[in-house]
Amino acid sequence: MDVPIILIVALIAGILSIAMAMYFRYLVLREDPGNERMQEVAGYIEEGAKTYIKVQYKILGIFVGVLAVAMLFLPSPLKKSDTYDRLVANALNWEQMLSYIIGAVGSMFAGWLGMYVGVKANTRAAQGCTISTKKGFDIAFFGGSVMGLAVVGVALIGLSILYWIVPDPMIVLGFSFGASSVALFMKCGGGIYTKTADVGADLVGKAEYDLPEDDPRNPATIADNVGDNVGDIAGMGSDLFDSYVASIVASMMLAATLAITDTIWDGMDLDATIRFTLVVFPVVLCGVGLMASLLGIWYIKWKGSEEPGKALNTGTYISTLIFAGLSALFTLLLIVGVPSDEINEDQILFLWKLCACAVIGLFAGIILGLTSDYFTRDDRKPTRKMAEAAQEGHAVVILSGFSYGLLSVVPPAIGIVIAMACAYLLGGVFGVAMAAVGMLAIVGTIVSNDAYGPIVDNARGIAEQGDLGDDIIRTADRLDSAGNTAKAITKGFAIGAANLTVFALLFSFTAEANEISQLETGTDIIDVMDLLNLNVLIGAFIGVVVPALFSALLILAVQRNAAKMVDEIRRQFETNPKILSGEEAADFGKTIDIATKGSLRELILPSIISIIIPITIGILFGVAALGAFLAGAILSGFVFAIMMSNSGGAWDNAKKWIEDGNLGGKGTEVHKASITGDTVGDPFKDTAGPSINTLLVVMSLTASIFLGFLMLFGDGAGLLVF
Amino acid sequence: MDVPIILIVALIAGILSIAMAMYFRYLVLREDPGNERMQEVAGYIEEGAKTYIKVQYKILGIFVGVLAVAMLFLPSPLKKSDTYDRLVANALNWEQMLSYIIGAVGSMFAGWLGMYVGVKANTRAAQGCTISTKKGFDIAFFGGSVMGLAVVGVALIGLSILYWIVPDPMIVLGFSFGASSVALFMKCGGGIYTKTADVGADLVGKAEYDLPEDDPRNPATIADNVGDNVGDIAGMGSDLFDSYVASIVASMMLAATLAITDTIWDGMDLDATIRFTLVVFPVVLCGVGLMASLLGIWYIKWKGSEEPGKALNTGTYISTLIFAGLSALFTLLLIVGVPSDEINEDQILFLWKLCACAVIGLFAGIILGLTSDYFTRDDRKPTRKMAEAAQEGHAVVILSGFSYGLLSVVPPAIGIVIAMACAYLLGGVFGVAMAAVGMLAIVGTIVSNDAYGPIVDNARGIAEQGDLGDDIIRTADRLDSAGNTAKAITKGFAIGAANLTVFALLFSFTAEANEISQLETGTDIIDVMDLLNLNVLIGAFIGVVVPALFSALLILAVQRNAAKMVDEIRRQFETNPKILSGEEAADFGKTIDIATKGSLRELILPSIISIIIPITIGILFGVAALGAFLAGAILSGFVFAIMMSNSGGAWDNAKKWIEDGNLGGKGTEVHKASITGDTVGDPFKDTAGPSINTLLVVMSLTASIFLGFLMLFGDGAGLLVF
Repeated sequence: MDVPIILIVALIAGILSIAMAMYFRYLVLREDPGNERMQEVAGYIEEGAKTYIKVQYKILGIFVGVLAVAMLFLPSPLKKSDTYDRLVANALNWEQMLSYIIGAVGSMFAGWLGMYVGVKANTRAAQGCTISTKKGFDIAFFGGSVMGLAVVGVALIGLSILYWIVPDPMIVLGFSFGASSVALFMKCGGGIYTKTADVGADLVGKAEYDLPEDDPRNPATIADNVGDNVGDIAGMGSDLFDSYVASIVASMMLAATLAITDTIWDGMDLDATIRFTLVVFPVVLCGVGLMASLLGIWYIKWKGSEEPGKALNTGTYISTLIFAGLSALFTLLLIVGVPSDEINEDQILFLWKLCACAVIGLFAGIILGLTSDYFTRDDRKPTRKMAEAAQEGHAVVILSGFSYGLLSVVPPAIGIVIAMACAYLLGGVFGVAMAAVGMLAIVGTIVSNDAYGPIVDNARGIAEQGDLGDDIIRTADRLDSAGNTAKAITKGFAIGAANLTVFALLFSFTAEANEISQLETGTDIIDVMDLLNLNVLIGAFIGVVVPALFSALLILAVQRNAAKMVDEIRRQFETNPKILSGEEAADFGKTIDIATKGSLRELILPSIISIIIPITIGILFGVAALGAFLAGAILSGFVFAIMMSNSGGAWDNAKKWIEDGNLGGKGTEVHKASITGDTVGDPFKDTAGPSINTLLVVMSLTASIFLGFLMLFGDGAGLLVF
Repeated sequence: MDVPIILIVALIAGILSIAMAMYFRYLVLREDPGNERMQEVAGYIEEGAKTYIKVQYKILGIFVGVLAVAMLFLPSPLKKSDTYDRLVANALNWEQMLSYIIGAVGSMFAGWLGMYVGVKANTRAAQGCTISTKKGFDIAFFGGSVMGLAVVGVALIGLSILYWIVPDPMIVLGFSFGASSVALFMKCGGGIYTKTADVGADLVGKAEYDLPEDDPRNPATIADNVGDNVGDIAGMGSDLFDSYVASIVASMMLAATLAITDTIWDGMDLDATIRFTLVVFPVVLCGVGLMASLLGIWYIKWKGSEEPGKALNTGTYISTLIFAGLSALFTLLLIVGVPSDEINEDQILFLWKLCACAVIGLFAGIILGLTSDYFTRDDRKPTRKMAEAAQEGHAVVILSGFSYGLLSVVPPAIGIVIAMACAYLLGGVFGVAMAAVGMLAIVGTIVSNDAYGPIVDNARGIAEQGDLGDDIIRTADRLDSAGNTAKAITKGFAIGAANLTVFALLFSFTAEANEISQLETGTDIIDVMDLLNLNVLIGAFIGVVVPALFSALLILAVQRNAAKMVDEIRRQFETNPKILSGEEAADFGKTIDIATKGSLRELILPSIISIIIPITIGILFGVAALGAFLAGAILSGFVFAIMMSNSGGAWDNAKKWIEDGNLGGKGTEVHKASITGDTVGDPFKDTAGPSINTLLVVMSLTASIFLGFLMLFGDGAGLLVF
């Protein structure tokens, strides 16, 4: 164990990251929270968010507890013993279970920290706008960066310590599964919550009573603001935490098997140093990524006040370039660090290739972000065409948005294919995993940019409700629209990163399955994943269908809840006319309650499905079919995620473009049609679309975690063999 | 060559079928075409339809001509010579080319015949309603049956004669490709045409000027009626013709290779009789299916006047039962017909199993139809929920419909998986092909029921425009709604059938590829279709994306054209107020012209894509990747086709249910929202959704036809190998 020194890079980076987060938290909290009314509104939001998180974490506790107990009894392969003797050898699976719980708790902690600061930053950012744009921007961006840094920090500290204590990727897999379980709940629940409130508020407030956005008379305004925090800060943070950890784990697992089987390492006698180098390499790159992220964050802070939208994106590009440079430097250090008689030229070349894979992955992420930017920007053809379609009525704007959403799948699909092919040429399946790691390396910058959005969105609302005047609202508006600009890129990025990650997980799942079956039977259970084999074809078929089912459940959940919200808002307006005249405050508690309870109730079914279906497929059709199931789900999930995300974003921007006075502007029929588009797009882009990422990661990890168990059924061939 | 006797069954059935079609044509034409105004309107429709077909067939002629020349120079494998020597051995591929042209011309003839009678039957059916419901029903149903019988007749005659002359499935493959080329154009073009007119007429006429459906003042009324004929009669007929032929060809091709390689036939020395029996078996079953169809048609004619909707569906069930009985009988005859020393018990058992597969396939088709019936009927939960969602506004009805559309994919997917698994257990890949053949065996009944729909839809319009009075219109309405009831089942059926067919084509493509590479290199080129191989994974990825791209292009085409139509209708109303007051006739020619030119222009790109993409995949990534590409497209195409078809149908019915006076009825905001749903659903269910079937068949056949050519690139491994 002489290499942990290199793990220390990651550990230090993680600790540094948390320290920075705490410092940013301090910077935010010391600011002026604004006038009484603002504090009151912010107080409502904070309370609503905390109530939601409290109930959510309680349910999560039960869910994680049940799964943890199940994991305890799972036959866990590959642990220490060279022979795999099912159930008996490893009677209780303590380590993986504990690591699972640590992963879940870590993710919950990061989410809580990010959201806690988010709900404090909003009113302070609004107040900051009264001093200067720069002040407002800084507060909001620092607030958002807390989430970004917390995600990276918790992940790196958790991973490096766990791997230090028990150097077995299977243990880290438990950590990842924990993060994933939390992400599933946070993403689905947050997504349903935020759109229940948003859609409900729009349908009655905007459409029926012509109230402006964030009008304090609208009973769902606070719930809407709470939703931004739980959906876009906590939900999105846990989602990227999930992808981030999963990409690292997938590559560590592949490295562990590669080191044993790959020809490049064949000449050497499995030297521990080399193996360690490969396994640890992804973690090191993440440390490097964090440094790049910090520098990017620094740049954004420096330039942000001038052109906020541009600064956020430029910060991302700068992080990317710095990552490319630093990763080359650290690869060099790594190679120099290994004694020259322990590594040959082929192996050195291979490490360089892996470094190239990571850089390719990151660049691919940027390109993906740019394509989704193109398809959603209001000065580009698709969104313009959609706005023009609104002139033909509600139906045509929907048709147009749906079609452009489908079209927008093509460029990123080609991008992913090229990135994957390049990475594969350089480093095989491990190269693909490294591309995913590279793509997610600057997740700190990405999450910071993303979490900035809901904070300024809230700040705008608070400025409106706190009567800060038109000038300040306009400043807040400018900051808000910068958030949307950044979001377009980060969303495409997040989907692409998740996609590469799940491909990597698919490969690591296969490698793991083969390793188990080698120990047990001396053959590879997934020698091939042959679509001409009926079991495999059936697996792929069901896999392709699952993202459709999952999306449908989430959208219906939003719709059901939004209907309740609509009824409640109408009821309040009808029973108490003083709410509409502004003499009395609306009953915010009631709407928050509907959003909270509804979203938590509705996330149960989709969550259970994402665990149960892969296990069922494995039991019935075998692990090769399970692999094909994952592949099918990954591919169709990609199509649905991109389509929903981009069409939703474009509808939103088409509406805003019309609201800016184009094609007749607000209040016209064209505007109304564009609102229909936006409302349809809301659950597309903020509930179903992004939840698919999490679904795919959870299903892939479930498959890996339960592999030992699935081997009990027909030696992994399943109960039904055709 | 002593078995052609059995081909004679199919040939006679085909001739009988055409004779019946001609007789029904006579029955329709001798009826009274109604008053002058009706004849005038019907004349416009007929003229519009003929103009469209004339231009369409001209473009098709060029397209088919170009492809035919290309095919002439294609290296065609497996023809007579035992050694496959690329280009050289078969310098010119005359037979396949001729058979391709015959297939195209046959399909064009069937489409022309069906449509020619359709546009004659509409006014006669309207006039028939003035005598009795029965009279109206009979005329419309006979009119529709002409299309159904023509499809089956042309297919059976063409297939049996071609196979008689050159007993090589590769020749019949050319025939199928010809049918498919025509179907692609007819389905895409017809789908775009019909929805251009429908959406345009609704957006201005209904939404802006509150005109009722089929109002003669609406300038797009005639174009709308023409659209029903070119889209729902000619387009749908050529689509099912395509699937029908393809299912037979796939099983013939599999039988040809099976007979050589399968263990069941191993003991025998490849006896020509046995092989012939297997190859011919599918064709015989189709003959049997035709008889069952005729009896079903007879039943519908007998019972149709009482409860038209129920009769159409019961007719389908009766055909199914008769098919089950007759196919058992003919299997017995077949077995008895082969001398007992030429067939052993295993082989007899196998033939019985194949018969079971066909019956399973047909029953699965019925079940699939019933699930789509459930998801689109206005007295079932999904459609009711969608109607209720309309109360919350335009956006919610869209979200609801989209979600239920996605949910509705799950039951038929499970149905297909079970049917495929059962068929596979009984007869391997050949069993799956036989299930597809069985599913399509009663295509005569299915097409008749389907073509009945547009005829009564037109009849209703003509009754309205011919001032036949409210009573008659109500009778026509009743007949029309029966058409919709039948359509729900036949649509689900058509998608399911196409799905099984393309699976069969996928298997036959693989078998053919292996046979070629065996001749050339002694190994199987697609030994496995391994998703862990990057080429294969990339193929599957692109395959999954293609149906999304294709749908987007078609919907955008409808949207673009409909916008032009909207402009034209508005222009006519604005420049000539006498049109709206009914004093002057609208300029129908102009709107027909827009629909015709637009649809023909817009179908070019999607058509070319469906030929070019599979060839490109094959050249770049090899034939195994091409197989995975097809598999990916089949799976995601299934999801999109079912989703769009069912959500579109349900939106339509939700709107009609509201128009029946529910939830406030016509003219309310709820109704307007439901119209938005219906308008979105129009291109979903009538353009993009059903065109995906054709896309899949065309791509699969392209892959098979160009196989010899693709083997030139890296021996079939493609130019880019990862």
